[in-house]
Amino acid sequence: MTSAPVRIGLLGCGTVGQAVVRTLLEGGATIERASGHRLEVGPILVRDPRKPRPGVDPALITTDPARVLEDPSVSIVVEVMGGLDPALDYLRTALGRGQSVVTANKQLLSRHGQELLQAAQEAGAELRFEASACAAIPVIKVLRESLLAAGITAVTGIVNGTTNFILTEMARGGLAYGDALARAQELGYAEADPTEDVNGADAAAKMAILSSIAFHMRVTIDDVPYEGIDRLEAEDLEHAGSLGFVVKLVGVARLLNGSVSVRVYPALVPRGHRLAAIGGPDNAVLLESRTTREIMLVGPGAGGAETASAVVADLLSILGTHQGSFLHNALADSGRTIAAPGSVESAFYLRMSVSDRPGVLARVSSIFGDQAVSIRSVVQSGSGDEASLVLVLHSGPEGRVVAAVEGLRALADVRGEPVLLRVLGSGEGGG
Amino acid sequence: MTSAPVRIGLLGCGTVGQAVVRTLLEGGATIERASGHRLEVGPILVRDPRKPRPGVDPALITTDPARVLEDPSVSIVVEVMGGLDPALDYLRTALGRGQSVVTANKQLLSRHGQELLQAAQEAGAELRFEASACAAIPVIKVLRESLLAAGITAVTGIVNGTTNFILTEMARGGLAYGDALARAQELGYAEADPTEDVNGADAAAKMAILSSIAFHMRVTIDDVPYEGIDRLEAEDLEHAGSLGFVVKLVGVARLLNGSVSVRVYPALVPRGHRLAAIGGPDNAVLLESRTTREIMLVGPGAGGAETASAVVADLLSILGTHQGSFLHNALADSGRTIAAPGSVESAFYLRMSVSDRPGVLARVSSIFGDQAVSIRSVVQSGSGDEASLVLVLHSGPEGRVVAAVEGLRALADVRGEPVLLRVLGSGEGGG
Repeated sequence: MTSAPVRIGLLGCGTVGQAVVRTLLEGGATIERASGHRLEVGPILVRDPRKPRPGVDPALITTDPARVLEDPSVSIVVEVMGGLDPALDYLRTALGRGQSVVTANKQLLSRHGQELLQAAQEAGAELRFEASACAAIPVIKVLRESLLAAGITAVTGIVNGTTNFILTEMARGGLAYGDALARAQELGYAEADPTEDVNGADAAAKMAILSSIAFHMRVTIDDVPYEGIDRLEAEDLEHAGSLGFVVKLVGVARLLNGSVSVRVYPALVPRGHRLAAIGGPDNAVLLESRTTREIMLVGPGAGGAETASAVVADLLSILGTHQGSFLHNALADSGRTIAAPGSVESAFYLRMSVSDRPGVLARVSSIFGDQAVSIRSVVQSGSGDEASLVLVLHSGPEGRVVAAVEGLRALADVRGEPVLLRVLGSGEGGG
Repeated sequence: MTSAPVRIGLLGCGTVGQAVVRTLLEGGATIERASGHRLEVGPILVRDPRKPRPGVDPALITTDPARVLEDPSVSIVVEVMGGLDPALDYLRTALGRGQSVVTANKQLLSRHGQELLQAAQEAGAELRFEASACAAIPVIKVLRESLLAAGITAVTGIVNGTTNFILTEMARGGLAYGDALARAQELGYAEADPTEDVNGADAAAKMAILSSIAFHMRVTIDDVPYEGIDRLEAEDLEHAGSLGFVVKLVGVARLLNGSVSVRVYPALVPRGHRLAAIGGPDNAVLLESRTTREIMLVGPGAGGAETASAVVADLLSILGTHQGSFLHNALADSGRTIAAPGSVESAFYLRMSVSDRPGVLARVSSIFGDQAVSIRSVVQSGSGDEASLVLVLHSGPEGRVVAAVEGLRALADVRGEPVLLRVLGSGEGGG
């Protein structure tokens, strides 16, 4: 069910743009099999054509916006240049000519989103911007589509990874704000100029975008009062901790008797609250509605890969809307098979009742040794005929663990049936 | 941009069916404004027409399947009758005639999903089933659309609310399995016959559906080995706890060198793992992919309202796919305005340096009293000129809190600038 290739033009080709090109090239076969469309990378507008852009065909690079915006073979424009000017003009032009647009531009959307959506509607084109707010978690799609009829009453989020990392470090290590910021910069979680993150402006722009979708209204960044974390003192995090709270920079959008309040501020969050557990550079958004109780989406703060992935998802979403075909094709058989259970690797917990006689542990251990299954920890409790052994095993093929347990059953020291439970995750496989 | 009404036929009208009818009637205006479509409730197939169905027009009720399946004015069929037979035949007929189908039927999808999807594709019809697995969280939409090109490598979930509630109670209260199950039944989190929940079969059916979408392959419930929680002992939960784990019933689907392993079992989950924090009757699904780090969706285990909401979202999704219009209309102005900040209610944390003189607390308290702001707790630390007061205020209009702080600034006892932070949630407003 493959149709003619769909040509994509790019505005900008920095980290995100290059990742988009890479995803389209490397993921081309998957995308084509699943969507029924071949996506083709077309002209790419850049400021400096001499910069190295590994993997990008130099013949596609141009400094002339008309090559993207006036090429009738370009049906979708991806804007990853950022900034207001000239991005706004370019997108007006593209939409005006009926090109669909995918953009990652938070500044632009949080100021001119409504205008651009109207331009798209008038032209019968699509405008998508999942990458503009919390790109790693598809919160805009969920709000726009899954919860369209649910009647959203509140959107509460930790929508800036930099500040969440800083606050997590301050709380964990008792660090002062400046030291935590320096650590964030060292690890790449904060930019050299972190102003927009730490003063709350970045979160405010995202909350403007999310609340305009959630509440079906125009909300710009100018409607969102914001406070940052740059004046927080370690002392206040300590007091908060002793009162049972953690401090988070939150965006809060609420429906109040037909009017809407959207704000960003550092808040004390009760330790039992869902958002209290969101640490490090992660993002999370809680959605409350009339018809369903609250749901939460959690994911990493967006880097280049997440942003590019959201851009590509938006591209596929536009194609799906035009053709209605890709959902079925998504089930096209991938040729994968079900794995044999014995070959799967898992870590295990094992409890068994044993008679506490000399040499029990040695006999048990040697059975595991014979199967090359390694033991992470053993705890023996009780004594005499009431003793029990609790072992945690390192990850290994399940077939071998099962064989070892067979061996244990044959031991005179082991009484009754051993209890065997898998241990999940923690870098141990766990499936 | 409203077009002709879209007529919906229903197969079944129990709790979920009635909730769907209610949502379509009550939410009609919102749905129409946002989607550009008027949805009309058409014929409703039931077994016993005499049962009371409040809010459902009796003239629509029928016991003749042909009235739903052979009415050319019915363009979408909603199947909420459950079971394999005759639901499978009905859906084959509907799809064969080109009617699109929305179903909440987990049993059916986990056995015959592939066949039904193929029938839909051949007929150019849509088949949607968000409500069939973790209805409250739109995980199927996210897998099918947002993460289509991401290359999913693992799906790990707590997908059964009944067992998660039971395990949470066992761990928290040291309850035996039977007592925790009884409590779940008392509170409506477990059915009178909980077999399918506690033996893992319900979770296995959901994991079959999720993994077939995630990995683009046929996975039926017969491909999913499952173990339940009905033989877990309190003793093992205690051992797990002392080793740093919680016990959860998890579904684990993983891609392993081109083959796929999908299983359900009770597992030890490290306390720092994202799934460890999911308590009570909640569901959560972790999605890992090649291009983005893991994301998690969390929500309540599905009840009637959540299932109906997912069915309606699927209906809108089908309309969106056909018309491509509703995303823009979703921004149609709702007439809402931005609330005046002073009128928003919040709880507050307040820290200030004070000189520790007789009557300080009385003077501070009376200023709050004058503004009718009530104090939840006060802690004074230090003494003399180094004293500081930390107050937590009950929720109230922000304008009054700000006025009180103005009053505090004028007090001779207060030194420097008071630190004012909001307190989120915990039933206190918190916006």
